[in-house]
Amino acid sequence: MIVQLGQIVDALGGELVGGGREIVISRISPLETAQADSISFLSNPRYATQMAASRAACVVVAPAMRELAAQRGACIVAANPYVYFAKLTQFWKMQQQGMRPVGVHPSAVVDPTAEIAPDAYIGPLCVVGAGVRIGAATVLRSRITVSDGCEIGERCLLHPGVVIGADGFGFANEAGQWIKIEQLGKVRIGNDVEIGANTCIDRGALDDTVIEDGVKLDNLVQIAHNVHVGAHSVIAGNAGVAGSARIGQGCSIGGAANILGHLTIADGTSISPTSMVTRSIRQPGLYTGIFPLQTNEQWEKNAASLKQLHVLRERIKKLESALEGAKQQ
Amino acid sequence: MIVQLGQIVDALGGELVGGGREIVISRISPLETAQADSISFLSNPRYATQMAASRAACVVVAPAMRELAAQRGACIVAANPYVYFAKLTQFWKMQQQGMRPVGVHPSAVVDPTAEIAPDAYIGPLCVVGAGVRIGAATVLRSRITVSDGCEIGERCLLHPGVVIGADGFGFANEAGQWIKIEQLGKVRIGNDVEIGANTCIDRGALDDTVIEDGVKLDNLVQIAHNVHVGAHSVIAGNAGVAGSARIGQGCSIGGAANILGHLTIADGTSISPTSMVTRSIRQPGLYTGIFPLQTNEQWEKNAASLKQLHVLRERIKKLESALEGAKQQ
Amino acid sequence: MIVQLGQIVDALGGELVGGGREIVISRISPLETAQADSISFLSNPRYATQMAASRAACVVVAPAMRELAAQRGACIVAANPYVYFAKLTQFWKMQQQGMRPVGVHPSAVVDPTAEIAPDAYIGPLCVVGAGVRIGAATVLRSRITVSDGCEIGERCLLHPGVVIGADGFGFANEAGQWIKIEQLGKVRIGNDVEIGANTCIDRGALDDTVIEDGVKLDNLVQIAHNVHVGAHSVIAGNAGVAGSARIGQGCSIGGAANILGHLTIADGTSISPTSMVTRSIRQPGLYTGIFPLQTNEQWEKNAASLKQLHVLRERIKKLESALEGAKQQ
Repeated sequence: MIVQLGQIVDALGGELVGGGREIVISRISPLETAQADSISFLSNPRYATQMAASRAACVVVAPAMRELAAQRGACIVAANPYVYFAKLTQFWKMQQQGMRPVGVHPSAVVDPTAEIAPDAYIGPLCVVGAGVRIGAATVLRSRITVSDGCEIGERCLLHPGVVIGADGFGFANEAGQWIKIEQLGKVRIGNDVEIGANTCIDRGALDDTVIEDGVKLDNLVQIAHNVHVGAHSVIAGNAGVAGSARIGQGCSIGGAANILGHLTIADGTSISPTSMVTRSIRQPGLYTGIFPLQTNEQWEKNAASLKQLHVLRERIKKLESALEGAKQQ
Repeated sequence: MIVQLGQIVDALGGELVGGGREIVISRISPLETAQADSISFLSNPRYATQMAASRAACVVVAPAMRELAAQRGACIVAANPYVYFAKLTQFWKMQQQGMRPVGVHPSAVVDPTAEIAPDAYIGPLCVVGAGVRIGAATVLRSRITVSDGCEIGERCLLHPGVVIGADGFGFANEAGQWIKIEQLGKVRIGNDVEIGANTCIDRGALDDTVIEDGVKLDNLVQIAHNVHVGAHSVIAGNAGVAGSARIGQGCSIGGAANILGHLTIADGTSISPTSMVTRSIRQPGLYTGIFPLQTNEQWEKNAASLKQLHVLRERIKKLESALEGAKQQ
Repeated sequence: MIVQLGQIVDALGGELVGGGREIVISRISPLETAQADSISFLSNPRYATQMAASRAACVVVAPAMRELAAQRGACIVAANPYVYFAKLTQFWKMQQQGMRPVGVHPSAVVDPTAEIAPDAYIGPLCVVGAGVRIGAATVLRSRITVSDGCEIGERCLLHPGVVIGADGFGFANEAGQWIKIEQLGKVRIGNDVEIGANTCIDRGALDDTVIEDGVKLDNLVQIAHNVHVGAHSVIAGNAGVAGSARIGQGCSIGGAANILGHLTIADGTSISPTSMVTRSIRQPGLYTGIFPLQTNEQWEKNAASLKQLHVLRERIKKLESALEGAKQQ
């Protein structure tokens, strides 16, 4: 694919410094690997030396970098170069692939009572249950199940293998056997939500499971029944959120992190990858619960000490007392 | 949906105290959020004050709570209110949705040699392989694969995306290359087993992978080849069980916990979420292996100390000796 | 199924010691559970006593075990008995099931622009996108999505539920909202790659995600955008590799282990299960980051101490100084 710089600024705005509307671009590249036909971007001033060395035909920069960028050739000045880059990828994809498809693929199995917006897309081999509602411009890529009664907002994107509205995991124990608690709630998903491949969002037990607007879930994420994920939070791959946990707005949950049930996580909290959250977090910040990686040999030594850690603590206390006693003699 | 209390006790038993068979119920709710048309339940005496304050039209209580509950209005006395609640959700779903479907959805791909009970249900876009056996009243919701030769008992429920009988992960290394070990065993699943969305149970290498009666698996669980899960054990979401591990009966494996291969876990063992089980457990109990969550700042300090933990231990030993020496002077 | 020892050595080589070409074998078994009609194998000399006690009709052994094995009956001598066993399972499966199927199952949804080798197999209810290329003898079992433009080499095996080429997880934040970065790269998979059930490999952002020849991925593995997995590496179930990480050749990543983004892992590195890799590994070896499993009671004590670990360290330092001071008095 080929576009000219002029087409890009006409579509996305930004100031093209030093002319060059006719310069031909055939790829988007990072600064290091850019070719003479690449457009690139500088989102962090720390990489300014990379920009100087780059072969890119054009670099998108912030206003503060205008002079430096102009010295090396064509540049586009934009308030936020990384956001500009994101919009450029969208422009690029639209040029390459044209409009996204609309309608229901003939291989999908859609219940006649489902309400699907006319410009939504239900891809191949999807299953859409009774009473489901799917909003305008939402796309179900392929092989997705949306179970009975669940609701998905507008402009959402669901990747292959997603399962919305399977039963939450709820049982009552009667004499050692598990009696199923039917899950009578549903899943309600807001607008502008993206859900990664093979991610699962269970329906609520009595009330609903809720994913607010603008949430982004990566692949293989598990969202249990009655979880509430606040607007514009992101959850990375393999993470799990147990039943009835409430994640605030604008949170960031790292890959393979897990949040126990019934906890509340404050707006704007970040959880490091693979951390386990065992208590509610009231104060936003970055929280971590990772055992540091070591050679297996070192780990074996430290793990052995760790099992005696509370004993070590007692030994230190005794030493302190003894030392105190020795001084007073 | 609307039901009368009289219908509920006629169907599920329990003693309706203080009349009110004609009271109309239109939802099941927790005590806190109950409305005037809600039925609720008190499963833990600790929440008795919540009951007193609840607006619920009727509360299901244990015999010991009979007097207290009767003071506030209609109540149903049942031996185990939580089990009663579970059965009520089943009654509710049946009223709402009627009988579950039976038969094979026309979009499913079923090998002609598969033996499927006449009242089982194979939902849309499922794949059922050669020689598979599926027992009475078992339900495959949608988009499920049951591979050649695998067996599923009666009254099981499989959620969308489940994969039964993919090849176990087995290879022999020959000069740096991996030679596939064909997996000649199958998967055998007992009765009353529930399997969550996108969960995978691999076929055995030589012998079979076995899931006994009454086991409940949550979403995105990985069960490797030749694993044996004992009756009425539960495994929460994202957990993994490596090859040939043997989990006893009535165990409870927390979310994202992992069990190494070839281990044995005693009947009645509980494993905390995200814990890693690296040795067999002979004694039932609750076992945990979680690094405590901290602010990232604290974690950085502790992780650095942790790498020196065995050195700390040595320093304490020396201090003890020196102190002993000082005293004897 | 029944085969004679003569058929086995004719097909797979190895020296049949002491005659017995006509001995009938009807199963492959481990030494301990072998029956009189079993063929078994001794891959580790440590288990030589198990061999002596085994009821197996024939044991496959290394040259060094020839005498010992011959004393108890028929044996096949092979350079690497475990590799011989692997090839025997392949022979066995071929005898049982005949040739694998070829062609495209009529229920699969394949874009007309996809290029599929004539002897590849696209199983039931798969989705193959525009411009996809699938090499000779590659098998897609069932319910697999290969997204637009992705490439899969020869002799690969993909298990049900696999998703190749969903969008990588990339967004730019603009005033608290997430702007999608379209993922313009693809996924390129080499030859002889096996991919487990419900595993996801995302397409690259600008460049491609690459899985080299001979890689084996287990179930429910997450491979993020722009990851590069070197030839003949294996990744066990539930593991995750974050964006742009680069795993060398011949690595072994344990189950539920996670590797952070943009890291480099040296050729031949092994990572223990559930470990979290937070830094690049330049030196091959076995690395571990697991919190040791304990009873929950012990864990509570140690976790409390652990939160004070850096304080403990300071206390030891003070003790050392004080003791030094006491000695000098």
